[in-house]
Amino acid sequence: MKELQDYIRCIPDFPEPGIMFRDITTILQDAEGFKLAVESLKEMLADTDVDVIAAVEARGFVFAGALAYALNKPLVLIRKKGKLPFDTVSEEYDLEYGTAVLEMHTDSIKKGQKVVILDDILATGGTLKASVKLIERLGGKVSKIICITELKGLKGRDTLKGYTIESAVAFEGK
Amino acid sequence: MKELQDYIRCIPDFPEPGIMFRDITTILQDAEGFKLAVESLKEMLADTDVDVIAAVEARGFVFAGALAYALNKPLVLIRKKGKLPFDTVSEEYDLEYGTAVLEMHTDSIKKGQKVVILDDILATGGTLKASVKLIERLGGKVSKIICITELKGLKGRDTLKGYTIESAVAFEGK
Repeated sequence: MKELQDYIRCIPDFPEPGIMFRDITTILQDAEGFKLAVESLKEMLADTDVDVIAAVEARGFVFAGALAYALNKPLVLIRKKGKLPFDTVSEEYDLEYGTAVLEMHTDSIKKGQKVVILDDILATGGTLKASVKLIERLGGKVSKIICITELKGLKGRDTLKGYTIESAVAFEGK
Repeated sequence: MKELQDYIRCIPDFPEPGIMFRDITTILQDAEGFKLAVESLKEMLADTDVDVIAAVEARGFVFAGALAYALNKPLVLIRKKGKLPFDTVSEEYDLEYGTAVLEMHTDSIKKGQKVVILDDILATGGTLKASVKLIERLGGKVSKIICITELKGLKGRDTLKGYTIESAVAFEGK
């Protein structure tokens, strides 16, 4: 039987030379692969208290849409700067060159809510760390961070020490 | 009973003065609202032949993730330039100031497949027209275009003449 990792396509030298990109579009474009991914995310939350799912732009949105629908949970968006129309909190984080900013609506999380953060990939953990900060500034409690893929060589778990993290497919390299 | 349109938040002067922005994040952050939206999209496809759902970045991804999962259909992504790692076709389209480019993976659509395009909003129709062109260049047939909201005053349907379009909530203005 095909496993989730068999649906991931590995593309060398994207977005730049030396990087092996883990392409999840090949999961989505096979209905069986997508179902497998969503089932896997559901399993990660089987014993987790969750009031809200928070999705990181943009690939995270695809999986989070399916997961929130399947679990009948509210879904809130963590977006790049300038995309959210209502009052926002924002958090800057480092990229390889320069910085970027993530934002959330101030009314997206209520004080004390248990929040699961979903992104497609755990790499250096920079995006996810900024997401955690946003949720905590709004008074939410991060119950778990869940991802489809993880690049273990980038040590994202060190950046996110103290938080529970689960990924469906972990790759050894960067 | 609350209807889907009751979940949409209207925000004046975003992204610029004079524009009334229709905010769908308030649909998502209420599990009942999100379920209503997905049920509404499912109904639009009740009598439609569909092999693949094509989702437009980024808000389209959220609804399409849920819809593809609910219908057990493959999902392909229409993304902004430079985001897709494999071989792509691309299509330029006009913005109010300047142009932008959308891309799809060359292997995302097989010849003759019936494709439903999903975006959160039908405005001028520029993004959706570029999406149609990409799908047709790959040999797909657009069976239907579906949206959550529609701004009738921007006349997107004129831009997309000849295609079947359905939206869940139509607003009279721009």
